[in-house]
Amino acid sequence: MLVVKVGGGATIDLSGLCRDLAQQRRREEVVLLHGASKELDRLSAALGRPPVTVDSVSGIQSRYTDDATLELFTMVYAGSAKVRIVERLQQQGVPAVGLCGVDGGLLRGPEKGVLRVRRPDGREQVVRGDRSGRVTAVNTGLLRELLAAGYLPVLSPPALSDQGRAMNVDGDRAAAQVAVALGADTLVLLTDVPGLLRDPRDASSLIADVRRHELGRAMEVARGRMRIKILAAREALQGGVRRVVLGDGRIPAPVVAACAGRGTVLRRAGTARVRS
Amino acid sequence: MLVVKVGGGATIDLSGLCRDLAQQRRREEVVLLHGASKELDRLSAALGRPPVTVDSVSGIQSRYTDDATLELFTMVYAGSAKVRIVERLQQQGVPAVGLCGVDGGLLRGPEKGVLRVRRPDGREQVVRGDRSGRVTAVNTGLLRELLAAGYLPVLSPPALSDQGRAMNVDGDRAAAQVAVALGADTLVLLTDVPGLLRDPRDASSLIADVRRHELGRAMEVARGRMRIKILAAREALQGGVRRVVLGDGRIPAPVVAACAGRGTVLRRAGTARVRS
Repeated sequence: MLVVKVGGGATIDLSGLCRDLAQQRRREEVVLLHGASKELDRLSAALGRPPVTVDSVSGIQSRYTDDATLELFTMVYAGSAKVRIVERLQQQGVPAVGLCGVDGGLLRGPEKGVLRVRRPDGREQVVRGDRSGRVTAVNTGLLRELLAAGYLPVLSPPALSDQGRAMNVDGDRAAAQVAVALGADTLVLLTDVPGLLRDPRDASSLIADVRRHELGRAMEVARGRMRIKILAAREALQGGVRRVVLGDGRIPAPVVAACAGRGTVLRRAGTARVRS
Repeated sequence: MLVVKVGGGATIDLSGLCRDLAQQRRREEVVLLHGASKELDRLSAALGRPPVTVDSVSGIQSRYTDDATLELFTMVYAGSAKVRIVERLQQQGVPAVGLCGVDGGLLRGPEKGVLRVRRPDGREQVVRGDRSGRVTAVNTGLLRELLAAGYLPVLSPPALSDQGRAMNVDGDRAAAQVAVALGADTLVLLTDVPGLLRDPRDASSLIADVRRHELGRAMEVARGRMRIKILAAREALQGGVRRVVLGDGRIPAPVVAACAGRGTVLRRAGTARVRS
């Protein structure tokens, strides 16, 4: 079982990814999750409502999601981005089925309610009205029904809050929960960089391997969105996933490459030794 | 088996509908289709791209759907409108699953390619670049899988064209094809009027019953969007559906009322006599 998350970056080669998934699913069951952040930024700007980003007190950047933002978020993630990917997969002969986390209560968890953010001047501030949360439960029954019937599930936020409302959740961490819940062997997180870089401006500074005890160090090296990916990787490994690969989504066969170890491979400590 | 289509009118009582469906599905299997035309008009206007409507040479009004319109269409139908309905159903304890016609090739058929339209001056004109078509095949396997697993499918356009592209299709006629393919007993089409009216401005002019041989007459009486509903009803009855009800979606329990015969009931000729 393989879980792949592809980011919403503009430079991702979607056609290459879909061709690649059509191949890969002959070898193992595949679940795809996708982002759409760049497209959401464009729609927000076109409607005169530029996106608002906040820094949590723990140093994680996220999108401030009020009611109006959640509506645009849902349009882009569950609507245009998802249908575009499902359409491309169908063109490759893959019977893909798109679902968001609200469908069948697929991705559930608590809403945050309030955000504790770090202002640019360094002071803490409490922000209300945020419609985001995190995934703590996955409806694996629905996913297994679809997989058993031969479909490739294509998932994304929004998720369903414990209060029964749609909410924004981080896509990488949601993918980690899906991988854990399905007992996946591998989680691939595809982005528009080659992996975790010591120096974000230098592609040759790729860190190829990270063991579980080195995750703290990896988190110190990571910048921006990469910090959430390391966090997601840690949650996946803690939940029993054997390896997480931070792969490059811009290359022609990104899933095959990531599964072959291209990118940054994060493993549970000792896994390689136990298996050798 | 009951198939319900609810229009995208602003006056539809969505909460009432969802409560009603939660009750109705205890008695029989239910599939819901939805529209979102008013919401699409609002988004189009907000983005400075007002909707363009064309009249076909056969006198049916439809939305001209170029590539840019299809993208907005998909956002609103598969994104915001669908997730809002699924969210409401979840709040009523109904495990709803939203799908568009592209998912699993659920709704398939040919693209029109070119439109033959009637210009305001009465002359015919050929319009190219339209991304619409009609549904001729329904993936009943996927719907039956979901129904058997206890889910309520919530469907909408876009559909998947025979060329593998997303396309706009009429929601009422798509609902008719779904009802036929599933062998549904009843198709309910909910709108923001009480049913087929002899005089659109007079609610007391409701035509309560239409037999199949009276469909031609009904089509002559119908105006605007109601013409497509009569066409959809005819296709459903021809395909074996026992009755089609044009019901009022603005009342608190619209599905129960329609199933009890409130609205305009269209039947296959002689059905009542055969059963008495």
